[in-house]
Amino acid sequence: MAQQKKMVEAITSMEEDFSKWYTDVVKKAELTDYSSVRGCMVIRPYGYAIWENIQKDLDARFKKTGHENVYMPLFIPESLLQKEKDHVEGFAPEVAWVTHGGSEELAERLCVRPTSETLFCEHYAKIINSYRDLPKLYNQWCSVVRWEKTTRPFLRSAEFLWQEGHTMHETAEEAQEETLRMLHIYADFYRETLAIPAVIGRKTEKEKFAGAQETYTIEPMMHNGVALQGGTSHYFGDGFAKSFDITFTGRDNSQQYPHQTSWGVSTRVIGAIIMVHGDDNGLVLPPKIAPIQVAIIPIAQHKPGVLEKARELAGRLAETFRVKLDDSDNSAGWKFSEYEMKGVPLRLELGPKDIEKNQCVLVRRDNREKIFVSLDNLEEEIVKALQVVHDGMYEKALQNLKEKTFVARSHEEFLDLAANHPGFIKAMWCGDSACEDKLKDETGGVKSRCIPFEEEHLSDVCVCCGRPSKHMVYWGKQY
Amino acid sequence: MAQQKKMVEAITSMEEDFSKWYTDVVKKAELTDYSSVRGCMVIRPYGYAIWENIQKDLDARFKKTGHENVYMPLFIPESLLQKEKDHVEGFAPEVAWVTHGGSEELAERLCVRPTSETLFCEHYAKIINSYRDLPKLYNQWCSVVRWEKTTRPFLRSAEFLWQEGHTMHETAEEAQEETLRMLHIYADFYRETLAIPAVIGRKTEKEKFAGAQETYTIEPMMHNGVALQGGTSHYFGDGFAKSFDITFTGRDNSQQYPHQTSWGVSTRVIGAIIMVHGDDNGLVLPPKIAPIQVAIIPIAQHKPGVLEKARELAGRLAETFRVKLDDSDNSAGWKFSEYEMKGVPLRLELGPKDIEKNQCVLVRRDNREKIFVSLDNLEEEIVKALQVVHDGMYEKALQNLKEKTFVARSHEEFLDLAANHPGFIKAMWCGDSACEDKLKDETGGVKSRCIPFEEEHLSDVCVCCGRPSKHMVYWGKQY
Repeated sequence: MAQQKKMVEAITSMEEDFSKWYTDVVKKAELTDYSSVRGCMVIRPYGYAIWENIQKDLDARFKKTGHENVYMPLFIPESLLQKEKDHVEGFAPEVAWVTHGGSEELAERLCVRPTSETLFCEHYAKIINSYRDLPKLYNQWCSVVRWEKTTRPFLRSAEFLWQEGHTMHETAEEAQEETLRMLHIYADFYRETLAIPAVIGRKTEKEKFAGAQETYTIEPMMHNGVALQGGTSHYFGDGFAKSFDITFTGRDNSQQYPHQTSWGVSTRVIGAIIMVHGDDNGLVLPPKIAPIQVAIIPIAQHKPGVLEKARELAGRLAETFRVKLDDSDNSAGWKFSEYEMKGVPLRLELGPKDIEKNQCVLVRRDNREKIFVSLDNLEEEIVKALQVVHDGMYEKALQNLKEKTFVARSHEEFLDLAANHPGFIKAMWCGDSACEDKLKDETGGVKSRCIPFEEEHLSDVCVCCGRPSKHMVYWGKQY
Repeated sequence: MAQQKKMVEAITSMEEDFSKWYTDVVKKAELTDYSSVRGCMVIRPYGYAIWENIQKDLDARFKKTGHENVYMPLFIPESLLQKEKDHVEGFAPEVAWVTHGGSEELAERLCVRPTSETLFCEHYAKIINSYRDLPKLYNQWCSVVRWEKTTRPFLRSAEFLWQEGHTMHETAEEAQEETLRMLHIYADFYRETLAIPAVIGRKTEKEKFAGAQETYTIEPMMHNGVALQGGTSHYFGDGFAKSFDITFTGRDNSQQYPHQTSWGVSTRVIGAIIMVHGDDNGLVLPPKIAPIQVAIIPIAQHKPGVLEKARELAGRLAETFRVKLDDSDNSAGWKFSEYEMKGVPLRLELGPKDIEKNQCVLVRRDNREKIFVSLDNLEEEIVKALQVVHDGMYEKALQNLKEKTFVARSHEEFLDLAANHPGFIKAMWCGDSACEDKLKDETGGVKSRCIPFEEEHLSDVCVCCGRPSKHMVYWGKQY
């Protein structure tokens, strides 16, 4: 118990300092380590196992909808990056430049890819000739580099892992459909796999991706009311196709430009998991991506038969679940803290009395509720309990999202909410980016998150300038 | 039939020009495309699907033996790379250097990782404190960059994909065991998954990895008798540990250096698959990693009932196998050529007469043998046929390896074999690297492949200098 207390004390409380709490959790749960390259992180086994489970889930969703994986080069020649004007303006200030290969200076600088639209376009120009070659539905899992000034593990780093889908279509309609299909796949993934609710919608002109005609976004809310851009899906129209001279012979034999999308989710999603679900005891992991779903802790393990039974159970459960038996010499209390810190959804306690009764105790990570279950139908009970944990986590996060979403009908209300009530603000907007700039300046960083698909009519005028309103916008600070 | 002929003609024959045959196959089977970055390739969906199947198989073998995946940064600061002398000498001439982040010049150059020993060591120094922290069995899937002068798809490229295992152990013995365990995992993988036999053994001093005490290698032979280094496993002793100041408190309370290994397999393995198994009709893929295991070709598909039955079968088989139904308008002959080019292990033909008889025809890619099977137990028959194809491919490759392995007992014999009989040469060696240099110069590139674990005693003297022999060595040219 002394040791348990010690471990818990080692994390800063969320209420006291959310930012420090985050850093403590990342460190104590052994998700990442710092490296000697500024802003580049080491993703440790426990953190990487979470990412592998995320990849597996998302990849299956992509393949089910007809997408194929490819691999593009790490480098982009400077001239290639410059082919699309808006795109290069957006990315050039934050790329890493390779200037030498071995001891020779390169004839042309290469940037380390910050995103791969240009590489995909160069390839597509070669392989798309006819409408029969469309659609092309490619995705890539890789790392990208953006030379960020300030960095935080998972949230903002000079290098991060992600997937980037890049698709080409015969018509604008088909590309727009794809853009929304992928946004909804992300939303399903957040809800079904991560137990995270979110606001989804369209970005304003100002917040769009460099080179995109439309950017759609999924915006989950962290426990402290701050937003995190959880995934984006872009519709490019035929802008890149024109810049890269990608044409195909259409059904009517005319030369046409294909219509393009891209969409991505990165290791930031792990930051979202931590900040949406975590508590003062550490991580709380959604069962579907938890590297360990059930931690088996023998109680009074020195007593005859306990370890044998625990090992037997571990072997049996490993056929269905991701299980870890901790039969180390550490105290049961220490183990409880350890697997709470690591966010393991279920703890299975098994002691001499349980064995006598042919039962064990399941303890939920999300609310510490205890469930006594018979060993006879343990698998069924664990399946049910994991679902209950998932649902409980989702409901709790949804509750937080609802409680911290406010409505502002006047400029004063907006400023008051921004100053005193962390969360999302729903407010009307005239459509002018000058108002976005003004609100951001006045509030120290509240920006438009998105225009939701179903807008409410809160008032007739823009919350900032008083001119006629065009849209209802979700506003909020972001990571 | 005209189209089929046309497709086949489009590949250069192996006998005529093996190198051009290779390039043709890579292109026609749509495995890779060139990019505008010299030496960097685009891995297309069909090529990448092969790599995904390879990853899945190897990753399961690694995890089963207790290894965990991590992710290390893409960049290595110049000072970090320089910490181990032999290592930096080996790699510095062929790395890409990042000198600018955005518009600012970096205080210290960063190299794009050519391999990650230094990054793993930096991390291990922080997390290894006690013998209880050992072993650390980490692996990473990533891309690495080596600024090669001449490049060829999969065989040699400026950027390639690979896995690199890096492990730390309490004792030298344990690390040596790990080195050999991983070599044998590679050998099992080549035999069981890729149907590729190989020679395995220890590299000579001259051919060792930069910084290693021992390097072990797996050397499959390509169809033309040339070797390809198929995977390596290195024992480092405690050299890196000393350079990076990695110490732990041992069981006797003394401060000790841990003992290290690393091991890797890259996308070159796809080059080996092509060159070991391929023929003048294109790729021949091992069933276990083939993206499509069964290509279903309807015969006379305009006749009533054929397409319906083919679709029904495709749906049924997709539950057990990786299946593709080609119901396009192309002729059956064109389709036969197409899936032969792509190396699909089994072609399933289904026409009106087959349907009448409740049967279909399976055609093996490796030898075009036809097997008539009832639709009632089709799954079983396909499982058997895929195994037969695998075994047939392995036997054929083994036959080639045996036929093209020669013995040289004199300098003259060695030179004659090297000049006139492409393949491996078994010959005695004195242990002096001067003889390796001489033989390489005299033969235009024949190098020591490895000292096998079971050496034969072919003669008492070195085949080059006539001094007393120390080892039997496999020699050969390499990709």
